Amino acid sequence: MSLPDTAAVVGLGLMGGSLARELAARGTAVLGYDPDPRALEGAVGAGVLRGVLPPSLEGIEEAGLLVIAVPVTATAGVLGTALPRLRRDVVVTDLGSTKRAVEAAALEAGVGARFVGSHPLTGDHRSGWDASRQGLFVGARVVVCPTPRSESAPVERVREMWRSLGSVVETMSAEEHDRRVAWTSHLPQLASTALALALNAAGHPRGELGPGGRDVTRLAASSPEMWTAICEENGDLLEEAIRSLERELSTLRGALRRDPALVRERFTRARDWSAGG
Amino acid sequence: MSLPDTAAVVGLGLMGGSLARELAARGTAVLGYDPDPRALEGAVGAGVLRGVLPPSLEGIEEAGLLVIAVPVTATAGVLGTALPRLRRDVVVTDLGSTKRAVEAAALEAGVGARFVGSHPLTGDHRSGWDASRQGLFVGARVVVCPTPRSESAPVERVREMWRSLGSVVETMSAEEHDRRVAWTSHLPQLASTALALALNAAGHPRGELGPGGRDVTRLAASSPEMWTAICEENGDLLEEAIRSLERELSTLRGALRRDPALVRERFTRARDWSAGG
Repeated sequence: MSLPDTAAVVGLGLMGGSLARELAARGTAVLGYDPDPRALEGAVGAGVLRGVLPPSLEGIEEAGLLVIAVPVTATAGVLGTALPRLRRDVVVTDLGSTKRAVEAAALEAGVGARFVGSHPLTGDHRSGWDASRQGLFVGARVVVCPTPRSESAPVERVREMWRSLGSVVETMSAEEHDRRVAWTSHLPQLASTALALALNAAGHPRGELGPGGRDVTRLAASSPEMWTAICEENGDLLEEAIRSLERELSTLRGALRRDPALVRERFTRARDWSAGG
Repeated sequence: MSLPDTAAVVGLGLMGGSLARELAARGTAVLGYDPDPRALEGAVGAGVLRGVLPPSLEGIEEAGLLVIAVPVTATAGVLGTALPRLRRDVVVTDLGSTKRAVEAAALEAGVGARFVGSHPLTGDHRSGWDASRQGLFVGARVVVCPTPRSESAPVERVREMWRSLGSVVETMSAEEHDRRVAWTSHLPQLASTALALALNAAGHPRGELGPGGRDVTRLAASSPEMWTAICEENGDLLEEAIRSLERELSTLRGALRRDPALVRERFTRARDWSAGG
C-alpha cells in the first residue's frame, strides 16, 4: 500500500473533506485544518481526523503527505505557513482547479521537487464539508501536474494514491491543464453564472425554468469564493474562451429572424458535437 | 370524463407521441399522422393509434379534439389542411413552444373560437416518437393560452384534459407566454448551444467535460428542426434576452483579472438566485 501512515489535509471542503474520508478509511492517520470550526467539528465527529492542526500548522511534521485543498489563491499562503515544518521526504499535492499559479508558488517556496499538483475533475455545485463524501473520486478523471522539478517518486506516489481511490489519472503540464480547463470547466461555469444573472436581472426566478433550464443553470449555485479565485488565476486563458462564447451568441442572435438556414446549421453542429461523446 | 371519444394527433414526436399515449390509455380513439413512417409504425405497433391519417388528413372529421404537435412554423400549414374537414364543435390545441404565431394562424384560419394553445414545459433534449412516453406530463407545468376569441367551453376542455393527465395548468395570453419563455426556456437553450459551438470550435469534445459542464451543454443535443422554428417565431423577444446574456458575459470577462470584488459579487448574486427556487 503506497498511502502514507500520516497525512495532513488543509481545507476540509468538498474535495479536501472527501479525500480525508478516503485516506482515513484506508488506515492513514489524517491531521486536518480548516478555518471553519464547523468543518473541523464535523470531520472529528465523523471519525475522519486523528488530530486537528492549529492555524500555525504545528504538528504537520508528522505527515508524509500534505494535501492543500483551499481556494487556489490561498494555496501559496498555506505553502508558506507549512514550509518550515515540512519533512524532507514529504509529498505535497493540492486539489485546486487551476495549476500554473500553484506550481509557481511551489517552485518559489523551494518545494518544487516534492510538489505534484492534482485536479480531480469531479466537483459539482455543492461545497463544504457537509457535501464531502466517500466515493467522490471513484471513476473520476484526475489530472496530475508534475512541476518541471518534480522528482519521479512523488509523482508516482500521487498518481498511485488516485488510482487506489478508483480514479482515472491523466498527467500533463500545468500550462496544458489550465488551457484545457479554461474551456472545459471554467467556461461552462461562467456561462451558467451569466445566464443566472441575466434571468435574475429580467425578474425571472429559477422556479420558472423547466428541467432543461435547470440543467443549464445548475452550476450557478457554485461557491463564489472558489470561483473568484479561479477567475483570477486563470483569467488570461478564460478571457479568450468567453470571447468565443460571446461571438457564438452574437452570431445566433443575428441569424434568429434573418437566416434560418444558418440557425439550423448551428444547432445541427452543436447537436453533432453533443453526440460525439 | 371530459376526454373526447376520438382525437386526432398530428405529429407523433416527443410531445405529440406522449399525449397520444395518454389519450389512448384513457380510452380515447386516437387517429394519428406523422410525415415519418417510422413514427406511425411505432405508434401503431404500440397500440396507441386506432387509425392512421393520410397527408390530406381525410378522416379527421371524426375527431372531437385536434392536437397539432409539429414544429411551430409548420402549425399554420396543418391548420389549413385540416380546416375544411373539422367538425363545428371541434376543440383544437397545439403543443408548440411559442404561442403568438400559432394564435395568429388560428385567428386567420377562422378557428380562433375553438382554438386554445398549450405549451407543456416538460421537453428535454430528446425528440421523436422513440422518446415519447406515458407520464411525461405528470407534475409538469402546462401553459394554456386562449385566443382573444376563444369560447369558454374549449378553454375548459383543454385545461381539464391537462389536469386529468396530472399537469399543473397556468393560463395566460400568447404574448405573455412568449415573453416569458424567451427568457426561461429559449435563452437557456441558446446558451447551451452557443457553449457547445464554442467548445467545438476550440477542439474540445464533450468527453473532456466534467459533470457540471455536461449539465450546461445537455440541451445542445436538442432538435435543430424544432429550435430553428422557435428561433424564427420568437426571435424578436429572444434578441433582447441574448443581448442581456452577452452583456453579463462581457462584464465578467472584463472583471476576471481586474476586479475580484465584482467577480465575487456577480457569483454571489447568481448563487442567491439559484437558492431562491
